[in-house]
Amino acid sequence: MEEQEKTLVEKALELIEEKKYASLRTLIIDEEPADIAEIFEELSNEKTIVVYRLLPKELAAEIFVEMDTDKQENLINAFTDNELKAILDELYYDDTADIIEEMPATVVKRILKNASADMRKVVNELLKYPEDSAGSIMTTEFVRLRKSFTVQQSLEYIRKVGIDKETIYTCYVTDEKGHLIGIATAKDLLLASPEKTVEEVMDDHVISVATLDDQEQIVLMFGKYDFLALPVVDNENRLVGIITVDDAIDVMQEETEEDFSKISAITPNDTEYLKTSVFQLWKSRIPWLLILMLSATFTGIIISSFESALAVLPILTAFIPMLMGTGGNAGSQASVTVIRGLSLGQIEFKDFFKVLWKECRVSLLCGVILCIATVAKVMLVDNLLMSNSEVTVFVALAVGITLLVTVIAAKLIGSALPLVAKKIGLDPAVMASPFITTLVDAISLLVYFAIASMILNI
Amino acid sequence: MEEQEKTLVEKALELIEEKKYASLRTLIIDEEPADIAEIFEELSNEKTIVVYRLLPKELAAEIFVEMDTDKQENLINAFTDNELKAILDELYYDDTADIIEEMPATVVKRILKNASADMRKVVNELLKYPEDSAGSIMTTEFVRLRKSFTVQQSLEYIRKVGIDKETIYTCYVTDEKGHLIGIATAKDLLLASPEKTVEEVMDDHVISVATLDDQEQIVLMFGKYDFLALPVVDNENRLVGIITVDDAIDVMQEETEEDFSKISAITPNDTEYLKTSVFQLWKSRIPWLLILMLSATFTGIIISSFESALAVLPILTAFIPMLMGTGGNAGSQASVTVIRGLSLGQIEFKDFFKVLWKECRVSLLCGVILCIATVAKVMLVDNLLMSNSEVTVFVALAVGITLLVTVIAAKLIGSALPLVAKKIGLDPAVMASPFITTLVDAISLLVYFAIASMILNI
Repeated sequence: MEEQEKTLVEKALELIEEKKYASLRTLIIDEEPADIAEIFEELSNEKTIVVYRLLPKELAAEIFVEMDTDKQENLINAFTDNELKAILDELYYDDTADIIEEMPATVVKRILKNASADMRKVVNELLKYPEDSAGSIMTTEFVRLRKSFTVQQSLEYIRKVGIDKETIYTCYVTDEKGHLIGIATAKDLLLASPEKTVEEVMDDHVISVATLDDQEQIVLMFGKYDFLALPVVDNENRLVGIITVDDAIDVMQEETEEDFSKISAITPNDTEYLKTSVFQLWKSRIPWLLILMLSATFTGIIISSFESALAVLPILTAFIPMLMGTGGNAGSQASVTVIRGLSLGQIEFKDFFKVLWKECRVSLLCGVILCIATVAKVMLVDNLLMSNSEVTVFVALAVGITLLVTVIAAKLIGSALPLVAKKIGLDPAVMASPFITTLVDAISLLVYFAIASMILNI
Repeated sequence: MEEQEKTLVEKALELIEEKKYASLRTLIIDEEPADIAEIFEELSNEKTIVVYRLLPKELAAEIFVEMDTDKQENLINAFTDNELKAILDELYYDDTADIIEEMPATVVKRILKNASADMRKVVNELLKYPEDSAGSIMTTEFVRLRKSFTVQQSLEYIRKVGIDKETIYTCYVTDEKGHLIGIATAKDLLLASPEKTVEEVMDDHVISVATLDDQEQIVLMFGKYDFLALPVVDNENRLVGIITVDDAIDVMQEETEEDFSKISAITPNDTEYLKTSVFQLWKSRIPWLLILMLSATFTGIIISSFESALAVLPILTAFIPMLMGTGGNAGSQASVTVIRGLSLGQIEFKDFFKVLWKECRVSLLCGVILCIATVAKVMLVDNLLMSNSEVTVFVALAVGITLLVTVIAAKLIGSALPLVAKKIGLDPAVMASPFITTLVDAISLLVYFAIASMILNI
């Protein structure tokens, strides 16, 4: 597959180079819009508009939706008003709203000027919903049925209006006031006898979401219930839109990448890596590096204040990286597990003590094994193998016990902080990393020096 | 929603407690299978079979699929042969294959004994495909049309066979030899005039995958092309199955959680956190902690060998945690970015030098800022504020320059290692973490001591 796609872009570029536009049209006309959009990514602005004008109207609109924001803006600026109008006529309202959200004010003005009155009204409504809410990702183009329709009538109605709807596979039954009272799938309708009424065929146990519900929770429902679409209702249970599975997948992918960025201390950014500028990458990475660097001041202060102890037994220094490293790893194992559990709705704040009790036991198990392994390793490698006379069994014990305490502290802090962050309304994924690292590092050093002075009398 | 669901389980448990089974049946009969399955998770084995027997056959099968493996095994063991047969009759073949994969040999034997000859044959075929291949996640129950059918005939055919098919919304057109020649969606058929032939209506530009293609690549295609189903063909382009969007979403979620586990040094495990035993959690975490702990031996050795330098200027020790911490963060920013890029198919090995050149520039920008910030911070906080006479401008410079070099090394190693791992057939996400940490830590220490001895003459 990969091979084929590359060939398509390459072939197309060759034909464009040679200005063989008729062959180009034949080449691409049957391809998927997402694949054709990739060709445009490689073209200069002048070529883009030339090639774009070769496309049939409907396909042109489908490709337009798949393009990068920059390309879209370039094209809109190159369009005549009539061309823009033609494309807008083919777009779904929710796609238009998404595009408008990314455009500068002047372009937005032109889009709204050339949109139909209907589109303008719906798009304005859609743009009012807060980011990340169900309202912001829903589409208003769905098939609405009445319960009194027969199956036959419904199928005829679908034939009439279906072409402009984002999906015809789930139809929504509403009463006179627009309240959602049932769902009839195309499968229900196709398999039922034509004279039955929609009321007899529909499923009146409808799962719906509210316009202001969080998109992250909503996309999880698609995974759980295997829906192709989910209805969105206002606070009086009136149907205002639907969310289709393809949009849910997009949101799912977006949210996942955001979480990956956050747990690796990067400000999320939804551009592909290879297309992101060096400056953009720098901007999304430097703040967290600075914060984490400055927070390491604490560990520096702790070490400074134990300088005299380290002077007496310098070998103690050699174990600091291992202690802090293992603490950091133990902590991030716990924190990422809890952060994902929260994201997937499998853990809530009310599970706080359950989680802590679990981590308590897991960390004790891990800590004991690591403690034994460390003592053994220190005695075998550092003492025997490298015959470092400074390394006594007491040093080994001090390191081992510190490791045990560090792992327990790391896992408890790592699991507790994301839960607390969530509770007080902060993003668990963002808040976790710097605080956990700093806390765990500081604790492991304090424990280390306390235990060392106790066991080794320094 | 969350509230409602909780109430369903609670209500159901109350009714079961009071043995009000008729009310229970009324309560749950219209709910989603996934929600009803949650009730069973709370029941003892005896209660499970009692309540399960109240369910109508078709719903019972749908709920069965949603249950945990343990519950499924318990139920199968409690079933009579007739009950088992009845459930199996209702299951899709791919779901049966998935269930069989998780069951012990004795249970598998009973399932196959009670399955229809047809099911047995297909399930055996499905089980032959390697894990994580398209074949292992596909279903064989799809609607197959002939190009000579009229639209009318096709709709009638769908009405006849549709009830047992996993989806009727995408139908597949094959020739006499079973080769895939086109796709006709239910929308195409519904909106076309009845006397047209399938050949006229179908889309003959079909995107398909091969049985052995990797599932991770396949699910990305659903995000890219907005498909509801994707056909799977053998190496002679004969249609053998389809992958539906709901199964793709499940795989997507699985793969994502696997990546999260791996980058936080946890062996993946697909049980929910709160349902995973302490021992299981320990088992998935301890190997990496041990490996990472042991690999820290190298940093220990490096520090030991510079003991004399540290003895001359003990304050140098105070900056080690900050240097290693910042190096680790800078490295994981780069490695997670590249690992995700690889997972999403946005980066390939051929981009190796593009990636390295980009990271080169980003790390230089980050490093310079961090260097300046560190020198300023060391001079202001450690020298002026805490009036530590040991901290001279030369110490600040040594720390700052080391930080610059460390960040550059960390980002280059962090981005290069996942790419190399992928190239030599290892999992980028697993291989990255321990190696990167160890390498970056060792490099930062070596650079630190080299620069310190140069600048500070120790």
